[in-house]
Amino acid sequence: MERVSANRAFGGVQGVYRHASSATGTDMTFSVYVPPHDEGARLPVVWYLSGLTCTHANVTEKGEFRAACAELGLIFVAPDTSPRGECVPDDPAGAYDFGLGAGFYVDATEEPYVANYRMWSYVTEELPALIAEHFPVDASRQSIMGHSMGGHGALTIGLSFPDRFKAISAFAPIVAPSQVPWGEKALTGYLGTDRFAWRRHDAVALIEDGARVPALLVDQGGADQFLAEQLRPEILGAACEKAGIDLSLRLQPGYDHSYFFISTFMADHLRWHAARLG
Amino acid sequence: MERVSANRAFGGVQGVYRHASSATGTDMTFSVYVPPHDEGARLPVVWYLSGLTCTHANVTEKGEFRAACAELGLIFVAPDTSPRGECVPDDPAGAYDFGLGAGFYVDATEEPYVANYRMWSYVTEELPALIAEHFPVDASRQSIMGHSMGGHGALTIGLSFPDRFKAISAFAPIVAPSQVPWGEKALTGYLGTDRFAWRRHDAVALIEDGARVPALLVDQGGADQFLAEQLRPEILGAACEKAGIDLSLRLQPGYDHSYFFISTFMADHLRWHAARLG
Repeated sequence: MERVSANRAFGGVQGVYRHASSATGTDMTFSVYVPPHDEGARLPVVWYLSGLTCTHANVTEKGEFRAACAELGLIFVAPDTSPRGECVPDDPAGAYDFGLGAGFYVDATEEPYVANYRMWSYVTEELPALIAEHFPVDASRQSIMGHSMGGHGALTIGLSFPDRFKAISAFAPIVAPSQVPWGEKALTGYLGTDRFAWRRHDAVALIEDGARVPALLVDQGGADQFLAEQLRPEILGAACEKAGIDLSLRLQPGYDHSYFFISTFMADHLRWHAARLG
Repeated sequence: MERVSANRAFGGVQGVYRHASSATGTDMTFSVYVPPHDEGARLPVVWYLSGLTCTHANVTEKGEFRAACAELGLIFVAPDTSPRGECVPDDPAGAYDFGLGAGFYVDATEEPYVANYRMWSYVTEELPALIAEHFPVDASRQSIMGHSMGGHGALTIGLSFPDRFKAISAFAPIVAPSQVPWGEKALTGYLGTDRFAWRRHDAVALIEDGARVPALLVDQGGADQFLAEQLRPEILGAACEKAGIDLSLRLQPGYDHSYFFISTFMADHLRWHAARLG
Protein backbone atom coordinates (compact mmCIF):
# COMPACT_ATOMS: atom_id res chain seq x y z
CA MET A 1 0.00 0.00 0.00
CA GLU A 2 1.36 3.36 -1.09
CA ARG A 3 0.44 6.65 0.59
CA VAL A 4 -0.55 9.18 -2.07
CA SER A 5 -1.10 12.08 0.31
CA ALA A 6 -1.61 12.88 3.96
CA ASN A 7 -2.98 16.15 5.33
CA ARG A 8 -3.62 17.11 8.90
CA ALA A 9 -7.29 18.02 9.36
CA PHE A 10 -9.41 18.53 12.46
CA GLY A 11 -6.64 17.15 14.63
CA GLY A 12 -6.39 13.90 12.67
CA VAL A 13 -5.00 12.84 9.31
CA GLN A 14 -6.80 12.69 5.98
CA GLY A 15 -4.91 10.21 3.86
CA VAL A 16 -5.21 8.93 0.31
CA TYR A 17 -3.74 5.52 -0.51
CA ARG A 18 -3.19 3.29 -3.52
CA HIS A 19 -2.66 -0.45 -3.73
CA ALA A 20 -2.66 -3.28 -6.26
CA SER A 21 -6.02 -4.98 -5.82
CA SER A 22 -6.25 -8.72 -6.35
CA ALA A 23 -10.04 -8.46 -6.47
CA THR A 24 -10.14 -6.06 -9.42
CA GLY A 25 -6.76 -6.80 -10.99
CA THR A 26 -6.03 -3.06 -11.02
CA ASP A 27 -4.55 -0.41 -8.81
CA MET A 28 -7.23 0.99 -6.51
CA THR A 29 -7.22 4.33 -4.70
CA PHE A 30 -9.13 5.09 -1.50
CA SER A 31 -9.13 7.64 1.28
CA VAL A 32 -9.10 7.17 5.06
CA TYR A 33 -9.61 9.82 7.71
CA VAL A 34 -8.19 8.89 11.10
CA PRO A 35 -9.38 11.23 13.84
CA PRO A 36 -7.27 12.28 16.82
CA HIS A 37 -7.07 9.36 19.26
CA ASP A 38 -5.13 7.99 22.17
CA GLU A 39 -2.03 5.93 21.40
CA GLY A 40 -3.04 2.30 21.04
CA ALA A 41 -6.77 2.98 20.76
CA ARG A 42 -8.89 0.98 18.29
CA LEU A 43 -11.61 3.07 16.67
CA PRO A 44 -14.95 2.31 15.04
CA VAL A 45 -14.96 2.65 11.26
CA VAL A 46 -17.59 4.12 8.94
CA TRP A 47 -17.58 2.97 5.31
CA TYR A 48 -18.77 5.51 2.76
CA LEU A 49 -19.65 4.30 -0.74
CA SER A 50 -19.83 6.94 -3.46
CA GLY A 51 -22.19 7.44 -6.37
CA LEU A 52 -21.99 7.37 -10.15
CA THR A 53 -19.02 9.20 -11.71
CA CYS A 54 -17.34 9.67 -8.33
CA THR A 55 -13.98 8.55 -7.01
CA HIS A 56 -12.84 8.64 -3.38
CA ALA A 57 -12.09 12.33 -3.92
CA ASN A 58 -15.62 13.76 -4.10
CA VAL A 59 -16.61 12.95 -0.54
CA THR A 60 -13.08 13.50 0.71
CA GLU A 61 -13.13 17.08 -0.56
CA LYS A 62 -16.81 17.99 -0.26
CA GLY A 63 -18.36 15.61 2.27
CA GLU A 64 -17.68 17.71 5.40
CA PHE A 65 -17.37 14.58 7.53
CA ARG A 66 -14.11 15.32 9.32
CA ALA A 67 -15.40 17.68 12.01
CA ALA A 68 -17.95 15.11 13.19
CA CYS A 69 -15.55 12.17 12.81
CA ALA A 70 -12.99 14.03 14.93
CA GLU A 71 -15.59 14.81 17.57
CA LEU A 72 -17.04 11.29 17.60
CA GLY A 73 -13.79 9.36 17.15
CA LEU A 74 -14.72 7.67 13.88
CA ILE A 75 -12.44 6.41 11.13
CA PHE A 76 -13.97 7.21 7.72
CA VAL A 77 -13.09 5.06 4.69
CA ALA A 78 -14.03 6.06 1.13
CA PRO A 79 -13.28 3.54 -1.66
CA ASP A 80 -13.42 4.25 -5.38
CA THR A 81 -16.57 3.29 -7.34
CA SER A 82 -15.03 0.98 -9.93
CA PRO A 83 -11.80 -0.48 -11.20
CA ARG A 84 -9.91 1.91 -13.45
CA GLY A 85 -7.12 1.68 -15.99
CA GLU A 86 -6.50 1.48 -19.70
CA CYS A 87 -7.17 -2.26 -19.76
CA VAL A 88 -10.46 -2.02 -17.86
CA PRO A 89 -13.49 -2.32 -20.17
CA ASP A 90 -15.82 0.68 -20.00
CA ASP A 91 -19.37 1.28 -21.15
CA PRO A 92 -19.35 0.58 -24.92
CA ALA A 93 -20.79 4.06 -25.57
CA GLY A 94 -18.79 5.75 -22.81
CA ALA A 95 -21.93 6.47 -20.77
CA TYR A 96 -21.54 7.74 -17.21
CA ASP A 97 -23.84 5.14 -15.67
CA PHE A 98 -21.99 1.93 -16.49
CA GLY A 99 -18.36 0.84 -16.46
CA LEU A 100 -15.75 3.26 -15.13
CA GLY A 101 -17.10 5.16 -12.14
CA ALA A 102 -20.16 2.92 -12.06
CA GLY A 103 -19.24 -0.45 -10.60
CA PHE A 104 -22.53 -0.77 -8.70
CA TYR A 105 -20.83 -2.78 -5.92
CA VAL A 106 -21.35 -6.18 -7.58
CA ASP A 107 -19.06 -8.97 -8.74
CA ALA A 108 -19.71 -9.14 -12.47
CA THR A 109 -20.47 -12.49 -14.04
CA GLU A 110 -20.72 -11.22 -17.61
CA GLU A 111 -17.93 -10.74 -20.13
CA PRO A 112 -15.97 -8.55 -20.61
CA TYR A 113 -16.53 -7.22 -17.08
CA VAL A 114 -15.99 -10.36 -15.04
CA ALA A 115 -12.24 -9.98 -14.62
CA ASN A 116 -12.16 -6.46 -13.16
CA TYR A 117 -15.62 -5.45 -11.96
CA ARG A 118 -15.51 -7.18 -8.59
CA MET A 119 -16.43 -4.29 -6.35
CA TRP A 120 -18.50 -6.48 -3.99
CA SER A 121 -15.46 -8.61 -3.13
CA TYR A 122 -13.25 -5.54 -3.05
CA VAL A 123 -15.42 -3.59 -0.62
CA THR A 124 -16.53 -6.50 1.58
CA GLU A 125 -13.32 -8.55 1.71
CA GLU A 126 -10.10 -7.18 0.28
CA LEU A 127 -10.29 -3.57 1.41
CA PRO A 128 -11.53 -4.38 4.95
CA ALA A 129 -8.53 -6.67 5.41
CA LEU A 130 -6.17 -3.99 4.17
CA ILE A 131 -7.75 -1.36 6.41
CA ALA A 132 -7.57 -3.66 9.43
CA GLU A 133 -3.89 -4.25 8.72
CA HIS A 134 -2.85 -0.62 8.36
CA PHE A 135 -5.22 1.48 10.49
CA PRO A 136 -6.26 1.41 14.17
CA VAL A 137 -9.76 0.04 13.56
CA ASP A 138 -11.98 -1.94 15.88
CA ALA A 139 -13.44 -4.44 13.38
CA SER A 140 -16.26 -5.26 15.78
CA ARG A 141 -17.57 -1.71 15.37
CA GLN A 142 -18.25 -0.99 11.71
CA SER A 143 -21.03 0.85 9.94
CA ILE A 144 -21.78 1.75 6.33
CA MET A 145 -23.31 4.63 4.42
CA GLY A 146 -23.40 5.83 0.85
CA HIS A 147 -24.83 8.16 -1.75
CA SER A 148 -27.02 7.27 -4.75
CA MET A 149 -25.33 4.21 -6.35
CA GLY A 150 -23.27 4.12 -3.16
CA GLY A 151 -26.46 4.23 -1.12
CA HIS A 152 -27.50 1.12 -3.05
CA GLY A 153 -24.12 -0.39 -2.15
CA ALA A 154 -24.44 0.56 1.52
CA LEU A 155 -27.95 -0.88 1.78
CA THR A 156 -27.20 -4.14 -0.04
CA ILE A 157 -23.91 -4.74 1.76
CA GLY A 158 -25.35 -3.69 5.12
CA LEU A 159 -28.38 -5.96 4.69
CA SER A 160 -26.10 -8.84 3.63
CA PHE A 161 -23.78 -8.47 6.63
CA PRO A 162 -26.10 -7.46 9.46
CA ASP A 163 -23.68 -8.71 12.10
CA ARG A 164 -20.77 -6.72 10.72
CA PHE A 165 -22.45 -3.33 10.29
CA LYS A 166 -24.02 -1.81 13.40
CA ALA A 167 -25.57 1.04 11.43
CA ILE A 168 -26.64 1.54 7.81
CA SER A 169 -27.68 4.84 6.25
CA ALA A 170 -27.89 6.44 2.84
CA PHE A 171 -28.23 9.73 1.03
CA ALA A 172 -30.59 9.53 -1.96
CA PRO A 173 -29.98 5.81 -2.52
CA ILE A 174 -31.02 3.69 -5.47
CA VAL A 175 -33.23 1.45 -3.33
CA ALA A 176 -34.55 -0.92 -5.98
CA PRO A 177 -32.14 -1.15 -8.92
CA SER A 178 -34.18 -3.96 -10.50
CA GLN A 179 -37.02 -1.51 -10.98
CA VAL A 180 -35.26 1.59 -12.31
CA PRO A 181 -33.30 2.41 -15.51
CA TRP A 182 -29.87 2.92 -13.91
CA GLY A 183 -30.11 -0.40 -12.12
CA GLU A 184 -31.62 -2.38 -14.95
CA LYS A 185 -28.83 -1.29 -17.26
CA ALA A 186 -26.08 -1.99 -14.74
CA LEU A 187 -27.37 -5.31 -13.44
CA THR A 188 -28.01 -6.58 -16.97
CA GLY A 189 -24.53 -5.55 -18.01
CA TYR A 190 -22.69 -6.99 -15.02
CA LEU A 191 -24.93 -9.94 -14.04
CA GLY A 192 -26.83 -10.84 -17.21
CA THR A 193 -30.53 -11.03 -17.94
CA ASP A 194 -31.55 -13.55 -15.26
CA ARG A 195 -33.30 -11.26 -12.82
CA PHE A 196 -33.12 -13.82 -10.04
CA ALA A 197 -29.37 -13.17 -9.84
CA TRP A 198 -30.10 -9.48 -9.29
CA ARG A 199 -32.04 -9.98 -6.05
CA ARG A 200 -29.02 -10.05 -3.75
CA HIS A 201 -27.99 -6.70 -5.26
CA ASP A 202 -31.32 -4.98 -4.73
CA ALA A 203 -32.07 -3.69 -1.23
CA VAL A 204 -35.83 -4.05 -1.60
CA ALA A 205 -35.52 -7.59 -2.97
CA LEU A 206 -33.15 -8.53 -0.16
CA ILE A 207 -35.73 -7.38 2.39
CA GLU A 208 -38.49 -9.22 0.51
CA ASP A 209 -36.28 -12.32 0.64
CA GLY A 210 -35.85 -12.06 4.41
CA ALA A 211 -32.88 -9.79 5.14
CA ARG A 212 -33.42 -7.95 8.40
CA VAL A 213 -31.68 -5.14 10.25
CA PRO A 214 -33.02 -3.18 13.22
CA ALA A 215 -32.99 0.25 11.59
CA LEU A 216 -32.14 2.26 8.50
CA LEU A 217 -31.69 6.00 8.04
CA VAL A 218 -32.29 7.53 4.59
CA ASP A 219 -32.25 11.20 3.63
CA GLN A 220 -33.69 12.14 0.26
CA GLY A 221 -33.72 15.58 -1.29
CA GLY A 222 -37.14 16.70 -2.43
CA ALA A 223 -35.71 18.60 -5.41
CA ASP A 224 -33.48 15.70 -6.51
CA GLN A 225 -33.73 15.41 -10.29
CA PHE A 226 -33.40 11.61 -10.05
CA LEU A 227 -36.02 11.12 -7.36
CA ALA A 228 -39.04 9.97 -9.36
CA GLU A 229 -37.32 7.87 -12.03
CA GLN A 230 -34.21 6.35 -10.43
CA LEU A 231 -34.40 6.55 -6.64
CA ARG A 232 -38.01 5.94 -5.62
CA PRO A 233 -37.53 5.69 -1.85
CA GLU A 234 -41.24 4.87 -1.38
CA ILE A 235 -40.50 1.33 -2.60
CA LEU A 236 -38.05 0.91 0.28
CA GLY A 237 -40.59 2.47 2.62
CA ALA A 238 -43.20 -0.11 1.70
CA ALA A 239 -40.75 -3.03 1.97
CA CYS A 240 -39.51 -1.89 5.39
CA GLU A 241 -43.02 -1.38 6.68
CA LYS A 242 -43.98 -4.89 5.62
CA ALA A 243 -40.79 -6.36 7.11
CA GLY A 244 -40.94 -4.45 10.37
CA ILE A 245 -37.66 -2.61 9.76
CA ASP A 246 -37.51 0.75 11.50
CA LEU A 247 -36.80 3.00 8.50
CA SER A 248 -36.31 6.67 9.15
CA LEU A 249 -36.97 8.08 5.66
CA ARG A 250 -36.65 11.84 5.67
CA LEU A 251 -37.67 13.87 2.64
CA GLN A 252 -35.65 17.09 2.74
CA PRO A 253 -37.52 19.80 0.83
CA GLY A 254 -35.51 21.80 -1.70
CA TYR A 255 -32.37 19.65 -1.59
CA ASP A 256 -30.90 18.20 -4.77
CA HIS A 257 -28.60 15.24 -5.49
CA SER A 258 -25.32 17.07 -4.87
CA TYR A 259 -22.73 17.22 -2.12
CA PHE A 260 -24.41 20.42 -0.93
CA PHE A 261 -27.20 18.05 0.15
CA ILE A 262 -24.92 15.32 1.49
CA SER A 263 -22.70 17.67 3.49
CA THR A 264 -25.77 19.25 5.09
CA PHE A 265 -26.84 15.96 6.66
CA MET A 266 -23.47 14.23 6.99
CA ALA A 267 -22.89 15.12 10.66
CA ASP A 268 -26.41 14.00 11.46
CA HIS A 269 -25.76 10.59 9.89
CA LEU A 270 -22.43 10.24 11.66
CA ARG A 271 -24.07 10.94 15.02
CA TRP A 272 -26.71 8.32 14.23
CA HIS A 273 -23.91 5.86 13.39
CA ALA A 274 -21.87 6.75 16.46
CA ALA A 275 -24.85 6.12 18.73
CA ARG A 276 -25.10 2.60 17.30
CA LEU A 277 -21.36 1.92 17.23
CA GLY A 278 -21.05 2.42 20.97
CA MET B 1 -26.18 39.51 -12.85
CA GLU B 2 -26.75 35.94 -13.99
CA ARG B 3 -27.27 33.03 -11.62
CA VAL B 4 -24.98 30.17 -12.63
CA SER B 5 -26.20 27.71 -10.00
CA ALA B 6 -28.11 27.55 -6.74
CA ASN B 7 -28.08 24.63 -4.32
CA ARG B 8 -29.86 24.28 -1.04
CA ALA B 9 -27.34 23.68 1.75
CA PHE B 10 -27.64 23.78 5.53
CA GLY B 11 -31.08 25.34 5.23
CA GLY B 12 -29.88 28.21 3.06
CA VAL B 13 -28.80 28.64 -0.55
CA GLN B 14 -25.30 28.35 -2.00
CA GLY B 15 -25.34 30.36 -5.20
CA VAL B 16 -22.81 31.07 -7.93
CA TYR B 17 -23.26 34.21 -10.02
CA ARG B 18 -21.69 35.89 -13.03
CA HIS B 19 -21.75 39.50 -14.12
CA ALA B 20 -20.03 41.89 -16.50
CA SER B 21 -17.59 43.84 -14.35
CA SER B 22 -16.87 47.45 -15.19
CA ALA B 23 -13.84 47.39 -12.88
CA THR B 24 -12.08 44.56 -14.70
CA GLY B 25 -13.68 44.84 -18.12
CA THR B 26 -14.43 41.11 -18.00
CA ASP B 27 -17.12 38.77 -16.82
CA MET B 28 -16.54 37.91 -13.16
CA THR B 29 -17.87 34.91 -11.24
CA PHE B 30 -18.41 34.77 -7.48
CA SER B 31 -20.29 32.70 -4.93
CA VAL B 32 -22.64 33.78 -2.16
CA TYR B 33 -24.04 31.63 0.62
CA VAL B 34 -27.21 33.00 2.18
CA PRO B 35 -28.13 31.20 5.39
CA PRO B 36 -31.69 30.52 6.53
CA HIS B 37 -33.20 33.78 7.80
CA ASP B 38 -36.46 35.48 8.59
CA GLU B 39 -38.28 37.21 5.74
CA GLY B 40 -37.06 40.80 5.51
CA ALA B 41 -34.02 40.29 7.74
CA ARG B 42 -30.71 41.97 6.85
CA LEU B 43 -27.69 39.82 7.65
CA PRO B 44 -24.03 40.49 8.35
CA VAL B 45 -21.68 39.56 5.53
CA VAL B 46 -18.27 37.88 5.62
CA TRP B 47 -15.96 38.44 2.66
CA TYR B 48 -13.57 35.60 1.86
CA LEU B 49 -10.63 36.27 -0.46
CA SER B 50 -8.95 33.25 -2.01
CA GLY B 51 -5.33 32.43 -2.67
CA LEU B 52 -3.12 31.89 -5.70
CA THR B 53 -4.56 29.67 -8.46
CA CYS B 54 -8.00 29.64 -6.85
CA THR B 55 -11.38 30.76 -8.11
CA HIS B 56 -14.55 31.19 -6.04
CA ALA B 57 -15.00 27.42 -6.33
CA ASN B 58 -12.22 26.19 -4.04
CA VAL B 59 -13.60 27.62 -0.82
CA THR B 60 -17.18 27.07 -1.98
CA GLU B 61 -16.54 23.34 -2.34
CA LYS B 62 -13.91 22.71 0.33
CA GLY B 63 -14.16 25.54 2.86
CA GLU B 64 -16.74 23.93 5.17
CA PHE B 65 -18.14 27.36 6.09
CA ARG B 66 -21.84 26.72 5.55
CA ALA B 67 -22.66 24.90 8.79
CA ALA B 68 -21.26 27.76 10.87
CA CYS B 69 -22.72 30.47 8.62
CA ALA B 70 -26.15 28.83 8.93
CA GLU B 71 -25.82 28.62 12.69
CA LEU B 72 -24.51 32.18 13.06
CA GLY B 73 -26.66 33.82 10.39
CA LEU B 74 -23.78 35.01 8.19
CA ILE B 75 -23.78 35.68 4.45
CA PHE B 76 -20.51 34.45 2.93
CA VAL B 77 -19.19 36.02 -0.28
CA ALA B 78 -16.29 34.52 -2.25
CA PRO B 79 -14.99 36.51 -5.27
CA ASP B 80 -12.59 35.24 -7.91
CA THR B 81 -8.87 36.03 -7.61
CA SER B 82 -8.32 37.82 -10.92
CA PRO B 83 -9.96 38.87 -14.14
CA ARG B 84 -10.18 36.03 -16.66
CA GLY B 85 -10.75 35.72 -20.38
CA GLU B 86 -8.91 35.28 -23.64
CA CYS B 87 -8.16 39.01 -23.85
CA VAL B 88 -6.77 39.26 -20.31
CA PRO B 89 -2.95 39.35 -20.24
CA ASP B 90 -1.41 36.56 -18.17
CA ASP B 91 2.05 36.00 -16.74
CA PRO B 92 4.41 36.08 -19.75
CA ALA B 93 5.75 32.65 -18.80
CA GLY B 94 2.38 31.30 -17.66
CA ALA B 95 3.52 31.10 -14.03
CA TYR B 96 0.92 30.38 -11.34
CA ASP B 97 1.90 33.32 -9.14
CA PHE B 98 1.14 36.24 -11.44
CA GLY B 99 -1.65 37.12 -13.86
CA LEU B 100 -4.64 34.79 -14.07
CA GLY B 101 -5.56 33.47 -10.63
CA ALA B 102 -3.10 35.87 -9.02
CA GLY B 103 -4.56 39.37 -9.01
CA PHE B 104 -3.14 40.17 -5.55
CA TYR B 105 -6.10 42.51 -4.83
CA VAL B 106 -4.47 45.60 -6.30
CA ASP B 107 -5.38 48.05 -9.08
CA ALA B 108 -2.54 47.64 -11.57
CA THR B 109 -0.79 50.75 -12.83
CA GLU B 110 1.57 48.95 -15.20
CA GLU B 111 0.94 47.94 -18.78
CA PRO B 112 -0.40 45.59 -20.02
CA TYR B 113 -2.24 44.85 -16.74
CA VAL B 114 -3.76 48.25 -16.03
CA ALA B 115 -6.98 47.71 -17.98
CA ASN B 116 -8.15 44.47 -16.36
CA TYR B 117 -6.24 43.88 -13.13
CA ARG B 118 -8.32 46.10 -10.88
CA MET B 119 -9.18 43.65 -8.12
CA TRP B 120 -8.92 46.32 -5.40
CA SER B 121 -11.70 48.38 -6.98
CA TYR B 122 -13.64 45.24 -7.79
CA VAL B 123 -13.57 43.83 -4.27
CA THR B 124 -13.91 47.11 -2.37
CA GLU B 125 -16.40 48.98 -4.61
CA GLU B 126 -18.09 47.20 -7.49
CA LEU B 127 -18.85 43.84 -5.93
CA PRO B 128 -20.05 45.27 -2.57
CA ALA B 129 -22.55 47.45 -4.45
CA LEU B 130 -23.76 44.46 -6.46
CA ILE B 131 -24.06 42.31 -3.33
CA ALA B 132 -25.97 45.05 -1.51
CA GLU B 133 -28.37 45.30 -4.43
CA HIS B 134 -29.15 41.61 -4.77
CA PHE B 135 -28.74 40.03 -1.32
CA PRO B 136 -30.22 40.74 2.13
CA VAL B 137 -27.04 42.21 3.62
CA ASP B 138 -26.63 44.65 6.46
CA ALA B 139 -23.80 46.80 5.06
CA SER B 140 -23.06 48.15 8.52
CA ARG B 141 -21.99 44.67 9.61
CA GLN B 142 -19.21 43.40 7.34
CA SER B 143 -16.04 41.47 8.02
CA ILE B 144 -13.25 40.05 5.87
CA MET B 145 -11.02 36.99 5.84
CA GLY B 146 -8.80 35.25 3.33
CA HIS B 147 -6.19 32.61 2.62
CA SER B 148 -2.57 33.15 1.55
CA MET B 149 -2.71 35.80 -1.22
CA GLY B 150 -6.31 36.29 -0.09
CA GLY B 151 -5.09 36.69 3.48
CA HIS B 152 -2.91 39.50 2.16
CA GLY B 153 -6.02 40.94 0.50
CA ALA B 154 -8.11 40.61 3.66
CA LEU B 155 -5.46 42.26 5.81
CA THR B 156 -4.72 45.16 3.43
CA ILE B 157 -8.39 45.84 2.66
CA GLY B 158 -9.42 45.43 6.29
CA LEU B 159 -6.67 47.77 7.48
CA SER B 160 -7.62 50.30 4.79
CA PHE B 161 -11.33 50.30 5.71
CA PRO B 162 -11.33 49.87 9.48
CA ASP B 163 -14.81 51.39 9.78
CA ARG B 164 -16.31 49.03 7.23
CA PHE B 165 -14.92 45.74 8.50
CA LYS B 166 -15.71 44.81 12.09
CA ALA B 167 -13.44 41.78 12.01
CA ILE B 168 -10.39 40.77 9.99
CA SER B 169 -8.78 37.34 9.98
CA ALA B 170 -6.58 35.22 7.77
CA PHE B 171 -5.36 31.71 7.13
CA ALA B 172 -1.65 31.56 6.28
CA PRO B 173 -1.56 35.10 4.86
CA ILE B 174 1.21 36.78 2.91
CA VAL B 175 1.72 39.46 5.56
CA ALA B 176 4.53 41.46 3.99
CA PRO B 177 4.49 41.09 0.19
CA SER B 178 7.22 43.71 -0.20
CA GLN B 179 9.62 41.40 1.61
CA VAL B 180 8.89 38.01 -0.02
CA PRO B 181 9.32 36.58 -3.55
CA TRP B 182 5.61 36.14 -4.38
CA GLY B 183 4.87 39.70 -3.39
CA GLU B 184 7.93 41.29 -4.94
CA LYS B 185 7.13 39.70 -8.27
CA ALA B 186 3.45 40.62 -8.17
CA LEU B 187 3.82 44.18 -6.90
CA THR B 188 6.58 44.90 -9.40
CA GLY B 189 4.46 43.53 -12.21
CA TYR B 190 1.26 45.31 -11.29
CA LEU B 191 2.55 48.50 -9.62
CA GLY B 192 6.05 48.99 -11.00
CA THR B 193 9.40 49.29 -9.31
CA ASP B 194 8.69 52.27 -7.02
CA ARG B 195 8.37 50.49 -3.69
CA PHE B 196 6.64 53.45 -2.10
CA ALA B 197 3.56 52.61 -4.18
CA TRP B 198 3.60 49.10 -2.71
CA ARG B 199 3.11 50.24 0.89
CA ARG B 200 -0.67 50.49 0.78
CA HIS B 201 -0.72 46.89 -0.48
CA ASP B 202 1.45 45.48 2.27
CA ALA B 203 -0.22 44.80 5.63
CA VAL B 204 2.96 45.31 7.63
CA ALA B 205 3.77 48.58 5.81
CA LEU B 206 0.20 49.80 6.34
CA ILE B 207 0.57 49.23 10.08
CA GLU B 208 3.99 50.91 10.07
CA ASP B 209 2.36 53.85 8.28
CA GLY B 210 -0.34 54.19 10.94
CA ALA B 211 -3.24 51.88 10.02
CA ARG B 212 -4.95 50.63 13.15
CA VAL B 213 -7.62 48.04 13.93
CA PRO B 214 -8.52 46.67 17.36
CA ALA B 215 -7.72 43.03 16.65
CA LEU B 216 -6.55 40.50 14.08
CA LEU B 217 -6.82 36.71 14.04
CA VAL B 218 -4.30 34.68 12.03
CA ASP B 219 -3.94 30.91 11.86
CA GLN B 220 -0.76 29.53 10.33
CA GLY B 221 0.04 25.88 9.71
CA GLY B 222 3.35 24.80 11.17
CA ALA B 223 3.99 22.37 8.28
CA ASP B 224 3.10 24.92 5.60
CA GLN B 225 5.67 24.61 2.79
CA PHE B 226 5.47 28.38 2.17
CA LEU B 227 5.87 29.46 5.80
CA ALA B 228 9.53 30.44 5.95
CA GLU B 229 9.97 31.99 2.50
CA GLN B 230 6.63 33.56 1.54
CA LEU B 231 4.39 33.97 4.60
CA ARG B 232 6.62 34.98 7.53
CA PRO B 233 3.91 35.78 10.08
CA GLU B 234 6.53 36.88 12.59
CA ILE B 235 6.92 40.13 10.64
CA LEU B 236 3.24 40.86 11.25
CA GLY B 237 3.66 39.83 14.87
CA ALA B 238 6.42 42.40 15.38
CA ALA B 239 4.49 45.17 13.59
CA CYS B 240 1.34 44.52 15.62
CA GLU B 241 3.25 44.43 18.88
CA LYS B 242 4.87 47.79 18.09
CA ALA B 243 1.51 49.27 17.01
CA GLY B 244 -0.51 47.92 19.91
CA ILE B 245 -2.78 45.82 17.68
CA ASP B 246 -4.17 42.77 19.47
CA LEU B 247 -2.96 40.05 17.09
CA SER B 248 -3.95 36.50 17.86
CA LEU B 249 -1.34 34.59 15.85
CA ARG B 250 -1.80 30.85 16.27
CA LEU B 251 0.78 28.43 14.92
CA GLN B 252 -1.04 25.16 14.25
CA PRO B 253 1.45 22.28 14.38
CA GLY B 254 1.34 19.79 11.53
CA TYR B 255 -1.06 21.74 9.31
CA ASP B 256 -0.14 22.57 5.71
CA HIS B 257 -1.31 25.25 3.26
CA SER B 258 -4.37 23.36 1.97
CA TYR B 259 -8.11 23.50 2.48
CA PHE B 260 -7.72 20.64 4.96
CA PHE B 261 -6.08 23.30 7.15
CA ILE B 262 -8.53 26.08 6.31
CA SER B 263 -11.65 23.95 6.83
CA THR B 264 -10.35 22.83 10.22
CA PHE B 265 -10.29 26.38 11.56
CA MET B 266 -13.04 27.96 9.43
CA ALA B 267 -15.83 27.63 12.01
CA ASP B 268 -13.53 29.07 14.64
CA HIS B 269 -12.86 32.13 12.49
CA LEU B 270 -16.53 32.57 11.71
CA ARG B 271 -17.39 32.51 15.43
CA TRP B 272 -14.70 35.11 16.04
CA HIS B 273 -16.22 37.26 13.26
CA ALA B 274 -19.78 36.75 14.48
CA ALA B 275 -18.84 37.90 17.97
CA ARG B 276 -17.56 41.17 16.47
CA LEU B 277 -20.39 41.59 13.97
CA GLY B 278 -22.97 41.63 16.73
